[in-house]
Amino acid sequence: MGAKTNPGRFFEDYHVGDTIHHAVPRSVGQGERALYHALYPARHALYSSDMFARACGLPASPLDDLIAFHVVFGKTVPDVSLNAVANLGYAQGRWLAPVWPGDTLRSVSEVIGVKENSNGKTGVVWVRTSGYNQHGKAVLEYVRWVMVRKRDAASAAPEPVVPDLLSALDAEALKIPEGLDFSDYDFTLAGEPHRWGDYEIGEQIDHVDGVTVEEAEHMVATRLWQNTAKVHFDTSARPDGSRLIYGGHVISMARALSFNGLANAQMIVGLNGGAHANPCLSGDTVRAWSEVLDKADTPAPGVGAIRLRLVATKDGDPFRLKGEDGKYLPEVLLDLDYWALMPK
Amino acid sequence: MGAKTNPGRFFEDYHVGDTIHHAVPRSVGQGERALYHALYPARHALYSSDMFARACGLPASPLDDLIAFHVVFGKTVPDVSLNAVANLGYAQGRWLAPVWPGDTLRSVSEVIGVKENSNGKTGVVWVRTSGYNQHGKAVLEYVRWVMVRKRDAASAAPEPVVPDLLSALDAEALKIPEGLDFSDYDFTLAGEPHRWGDYEIGEQIDHVDGVTVEEAEHMVATRLWQNTAKVHFDTSARPDGSRLIYGGHVISMARALSFNGLANAQMIVGLNGGAHANPCLSGDTVRAWSEVLDKADTPAPGVGAIRLRLVATKDGDPFRLKGEDGKYLPEVLLDLDYWALMPK
Amino acid sequence: MGAKTNPGRFFEDYHVGDTIHHAVPRSVGQGERALYHALYPARHALYSSDMFARACGLPASPLDDLIAFHVVFGKTVPDVSLNAVANLGYAQGRWLAPVWPGDTLRSVSEVIGVKENSNGKTGVVWVRTSGYNQHGKAVLEYVRWVMVRKRDAASAAPEPVVPDLLSALDAEALKIPEGLDFSDYDFTLAGEPHRWGDYEIGEQIDHVDGVTVEEAEHMVATRLWQNTAKVHFDTSARPDGSRLIYGGHVISMARALSFNGLANAQMIVGLNGGAHANPCLSGDTVRAWSEVLDKADTPAPGVGAIRLRLVATKDGDPFRLKGEDGKYLPEVLLDLDYWALMPK
Repeated sequence: MGAKTNPGRFFEDYHVGDTIHHAVPRSVGQGERALYHALYPARHALYSSDMFARACGLPASPLDDLIAFHVVFGKTVPDVSLNAVANLGYAQGRWLAPVWPGDTLRSVSEVIGVKENSNGKTGVVWVRTSGYNQHGKAVLEYVRWVMVRKRDAASAAPEPVVPDLLSALDAEALKIPEGLDFSDYDFTLAGEPHRWGDYEIGEQIDHVDGVTVEEAEHMVATRLWQNTAKVHFDTSARPDGSRLIYGGHVISMARALSFNGLANAQMIVGLNGGAHANPCLSGDTVRAWSEVLDKADTPAPGVGAIRLRLVATKDGDPFRLKGEDGKYLPEVLLDLDYWALMPK
Repeated sequence: MGAKTNPGRFFEDYHVGDTIHHAVPRSVGQGERALYHALYPARHALYSSDMFARACGLPASPLDDLIAFHVVFGKTVPDVSLNAVANLGYAQGRWLAPVWPGDTLRSVSEVIGVKENSNGKTGVVWVRTSGYNQHGKAVLEYVRWVMVRKRDAASAAPEPVVPDLLSALDAEALKIPEGLDFSDYDFTLAGEPHRWGDYEIGEQIDHVDGVTVEEAEHMVATRLWQNTAKVHFDTSARPDGSRLIYGGHVISMARALSFNGLANAQMIVGLNGGAHANPCLSGDTVRAWSEVLDKADTPAPGVGAIRLRLVATKDGDPFRLKGEDGKYLPEVLLDLDYWALMPK
Repeated sequence: MGAKTNPGRFFEDYHVGDTIHHAVPRSVGQGERALYHALYPARHALYSSDMFARACGLPASPLDDLIAFHVVFGKTVPDVSLNAVANLGYAQGRWLAPVWPGDTLRSVSEVIGVKENSNGKTGVVWVRTSGYNQHGKAVLEYVRWVMVRKRDAASAAPEPVVPDLLSALDAEALKIPEGLDFSDYDFTLAGEPHRWGDYEIGEQIDHVDGVTVEEAEHMVATRLWQNTAKVHFDTSARPDGSRLIYGGHVISMARALSFNGLANAQMIVGLNGGAHANPCLSGDTVRAWSEVLDKADTPAPGVGAIRLRLVATKDGDPFRLKGEDGKYLPEVLLDLDYWALMPK
């Protein structure tokens, strides 16, 4: 009998064109919804109230778009990032259909690029991951690239394949959820009066609030998405004994904090890019600010698209991102570029 | 473009007769029920078992009465207490209908009193808050008054209006949930043999058990109710770097601990008053004792009403409340006065 | 009026043949399922995905077998272990039917043995506990024995009755869930290729991963099962101010960690024995290893039974259990002996 445990894949195990069917499909429901609200200060009304969602043309309140992201992402960890040195980036992410309580999600990834690093010890792998529901319908897709260790520094480098990736999705590529209609949007119940037309490209918003994060919380969250990366759970996995907080936890925290100033950026439909600029650890107080990068109309009634930079920091002043050297400032945790839908 | 974030209201922004429709309606369900049992040692059988609830004439087990309170209360925070200096009191609280899994709650407050303080810097605002379900039916109402900062010390004081509030509700004013029938109440399954007739006015009960509270728990709870007050989450919001525990967390903890001695005080139907006597912080061990303040019959079969003082402490001996100076002792966290329904 | 709180039972209060109907039935559902996944790194596909469970012949994904165990066990604590000095062992545990979201569980125990200890201060009590669902159907049964304090050292010792207990259940005694069929089992979605035939008796598996546990997590878990033992919650209940982690928390953590190497040991159907070898405290990093103790065929299509020793440790090397003195090594937290069902 050989070893039964999963050692993870190494750089040599990825070949362009490979399809990886990730394990452990997951049914999600009212419990995941409640936990999401318990873990993050989430208040976007469409995800909080069935009544509000129905008034916007949906059959009920969907699960938060980031629940879909975390569950789909979590399934890929044992196959993609168990031996990853770094999560390098995201691109071309699109939410293709809402996820409803009772849905069962699974993930499939295609290897679309490999490039050995010049040090001969690591390489970069690009995968396009898709999440599917129980009807076989895609609910989410995105490209991610990670730096992965080689099993053996002596193994030959593969032919490098670097995919052409868009720096941002065109608004026309965004998928508007079926039936979405903001014509009778209730700004009072949503919590803020600011509509799509009230935001200007270049405008920056300090979301003001902060949350000091705790070990128990990020582990509860990360397990909920069945993300098994050791560094999040095991104090002996990192030399300094700290537990690295899952980058997605910071994404959700920042997005929830952004309610204060962006309460009407209801649905996330596109992920243009993202960098986990610095590690987040227990005890850090996470804050967030946003910048309006672009705006576009959509064919859905009353629905505009807004492209936002969402930056999470651990203290420090808002609106500061990179130093003169072009590197992220040490207090910056996250730099995310996404498209959201907003009432016009 | 002006600032998009919510600065909260100041004393000058409240006028008697104003109606405030609070934002972010919330659908509550099985997830919130499970989290309530995970956060508090809640064991009252009516809220734990659908079978038990049906045997008491209800269609199913409702969500805990304090879930209704926390959700309705949480919605008011951005409009009522974001700039509050202190939460001064509650009165005339009544639970008007059970909340069922799947219900969607929203909150509306009417300003019923304002009185500037003599220092000219703050004032007291009284609001009557009502929570409604998706059918527009009121599920809860209560009066709360808070001390709020003035935006500008120089602004003129309004005509003072101080509402006449009852020190306690008459039992006749309590709303008994439709169908409630304790005629065939199962004391064995409920956990204690003591019925309404076994409690005497003036009797005091030490609930014995204690729970040492943790940061992660109170933040999870407070977020679950979408309560956004900074002091609960952000270590930089208070000078000493501590996070103040939401008073409602202490209410729920004390109520759950009161099972041991009051297992049959099943449903909370009235809130006569309440004071958060001292701050509760992570690391405190919360204990509770109760005193029977009054008893009354009800028209529902087998159902008696019992008025209870519920006191939460952080250590110290039970049954001690105030010092010779009439002030709460430093170990007292909560002094709550409520009506519950009990089998006769 | 006498004291209203539950002092717990003492050794003198148990008589062979007594039946104890435990209080506070509990309805369990999607919230408990989600919390289980948030508290433990649980990934067995049958409990994660309704689709996967249906492909295995079940109507939907049941709640984790250990949720059933914890809820049934938790109900017994106020009657069996409130004054217990030690939880001595388990035997003859059988899962008799899956628990589905929406089920309501209650527990009944029969006293099947008593034996005073020679010190005259304590005695051992054996109970057979059964959990029932709302249809009156037994879902779980097991024998547990605990050491309990006497109320009065002077009271006469009862006639000793020590039940004959099996050291392990025969595979024929195991109850296979109705409809279970692993003929078309999807090993890719389950996460590992190893089938029943790939495991050899005597084989040992290091589950590799570790989780550093936090106070907030084990208290959330223990409350969720309505387990009220003071030592888990109250820092003043133990001389050293630590909170003892509920042994069942360690069982669930170790079982979830065992996915890595035993992903296909899907359903727990028998509990042959178990020892909580050393206390687990917050800050401990829990790891697990398993040993294959036995294998047996079952009449269900494609379903084999595997008997496993599951050992939880706090650090230390795997595969070490007892010292030369026959005592558990100090790093061993749990030694559990159970039967699981696995695809052939």
